[in-house]
Amino acid sequence: MKKKGKQTVVFENPPLIRGFGSAVGKKEGEGPLKKYFDCISSDDRFGEATWEKAESRFISESVRTAVRKSGMKLADADYIFCGDLLNQCAGSNFAVRELGIPFFGLYGACSTMAEALLLGAMAIDGDFGENVVSVTSSHFCSSERQFRFPLEYGGSRPASSQWTVTGSGAVVLSSVEGKVKIPSATVGKIVDLGITDANNMGAAMAPAAMDTVITHFEDTGRDFKDFDMIFTGDLGNVGYEILGSLFSEDGYSVRGRLSDCGLIIFDREKQDVHSGGSGCGCSASVLTSYILNEMLSGSFKRVLFVGTGALMSPVLTGQGESIPGIAHAIELEV
Amino acid sequence: MKKKGKQTVVFENPPLIRGFGSAVGKKEGEGPLKKYFDCISSDDRFGEATWEKAESRFISESVRTAVRKSGMKLADADYIFCGDLLNQCAGSNFAVRELGIPFFGLYGACSTMAEALLLGAMAIDGDFGENVVSVTSSHFCSSERQFRFPLEYGGSRPASSQWTVTGSGAVVLSSVEGKVKIPSATVGKIVDLGITDANNMGAAMAPAAMDTVITHFEDTGRDFKDFDMIFTGDLGNVGYEILGSLFSEDGYSVRGRLSDCGLIIFDREKQDVHSGGSGCGCSASVLTSYILNEMLSGSFKRVLFVGTGALMSPVLTGQGESIPGIAHAIELEV
Repeated sequence: MKKKGKQTVVFENPPLIRGFGSAVGKKEGEGPLKKYFDCISSDDRFGEATWEKAESRFISESVRTAVRKSGMKLADADYIFCGDLLNQCAGSNFAVRELGIPFFGLYGACSTMAEALLLGAMAIDGDFGENVVSVTSSHFCSSERQFRFPLEYGGSRPASSQWTVTGSGAVVLSSVEGKVKIPSATVGKIVDLGITDANNMGAAMAPAAMDTVITHFEDTGRDFKDFDMIFTGDLGNVGYEILGSLFSEDGYSVRGRLSDCGLIIFDREKQDVHSGGSGCGCSASVLTSYILNEMLSGSFKRVLFVGTGALMSPVLTGQGESIPGIAHAIELEV
Repeated sequence: MKKKGKQTVVFENPPLIRGFGSAVGKKEGEGPLKKYFDCISSDDRFGEATWEKAESRFISESVRTAVRKSGMKLADADYIFCGDLLNQCAGSNFAVRELGIPFFGLYGACSTMAEALLLGAMAIDGDFGENVVSVTSSHFCSSERQFRFPLEYGGSRPASSQWTVTGSGAVVLSSVEGKVKIPSATVGKIVDLGITDANNMGAAMAPAAMDTVITHFEDTGRDFKDFDMIFTGDLGNVGYEILGSLFSEDGYSVRGRLSDCGLIIFDREKQDVHSGGSGCGCSASVLTSYILNEMLSGSFKRVLFVGTGALMSPVLTGQGESIPGIAHAIELEV
């Protein structure tokens, strides 16, 4: 069986990343990763009448870019694994409707990009297809009104809150070509330590990130030293500090090898994003811009990409429930 | 490659159904399938304070029953594939939190049970695990207030509306034992013919069901005569009539071999459910009660289980959008 230890899949023929693409909003395009993005929209509507329809357009754009850069056509994709933060994953459904690819809809909150890569890699390594698209998105405006308050209300944001990234990132996984491969991946369990503050997602996700990374270490016999960088996505500053403390308490030396997609996509000093970026579009767009490009240019040889999701339900929060967290880890190697 | 034709996966070592379980609400337990259900709750709260928490309890109950009937423990499950209709798939997240199984969250509206079986079967046949749980749920009360109106409002329901099933069905897929196997499955594409009426889901889903069934026929060289029964789930009466007409127009003879989970779970004459049952809990609970038990007792040898989903978003409907449909088909054979 292609399973090692408790929760880790070791692929027999590691799926390859054939191409990738990103499309982001104006604010993201003004941040530190500006030069890495394939497409930066001049506003948050991206030519559409509503934020929700704009979100679908970001997905469509990142998929078309990833497919084009893979030297293939949409019709060459065997499956698309896609999800987002909107209720009913509406961003995904309305984007995929136009793409004509057999579709698996996913919901893993901000862990969705890692979930989509994991299932896509299983589809490739299991020999169920040659080319698979894995993609997610998020949108600041559609998320705020759905999960918290309408923007027009002007609610003030506490220091622990994160700024949902507007954008999408897509990856084409393939059995035949690509320079970056996925040798293994660790499937996460839900971890919930009782956080109930919808403005502190980082604290809700950090224990899940810890659980999945340590499970990956135990299942594979590795440690921080075996990776050039471990990117969580997206804990933000509060969650990142908590995760660092958790590792220290457990005796792990992070050694400058732990980073977070929510921390690097914005300039926290200048861009007023409080604890950092979040949303499934955050880890997806950082992966498909900075991380994969820097892997191709030789800066990183081996990376662990850890998608972290806060499975927060406003309805259940209103019923006194806490916020379950989950994280999936994907090993990436040049 | 284990792919045949355009969209069909043919498994090399067909995954086996090791066990299955169902847990439903009071109304479902008063219907024609009463004797097949493992657990019937005496009310819609199932001992919980809210409908949403009750939905999680239905999931938990069906999973524990399926696992027990499989002669295994929860810890023997390598992965759980789970989704539901609630925003953020909250029913699934809060149920899985207690189960401690590595988790993939799915959203495919009422097609989710077929999606969960498809991905679970790929995980087994791809040799990524030995035992996988596939499960979905829905709840009439939590669905109505989320998708349409609060129950207290007392909105009248048109004849084309369907009654969301309260309940859950779970299947344990295995590489080692089980009498019913999954030889093949067809992954659906989104089909949208422009239906905008949120009280007519059957019409939105029927074209997707047609597309997936005919693709399955074309990919495998089969026809209605090769199946004892094709169960869609859940078109209800309106969608079922449309689907029958679509097949006739295309020259297919249904020959009494087309049924629908939404039509058989309730007595439409006596139970005031208008067009029939719906919700991911409908096809899941009919599969894990009537269909699989009748396969084990010899009534059906080969069945095509076609989960159909209306990917309706109340927000996008409010923005003038139509309702995308999707269907996935699972071949079941004793």
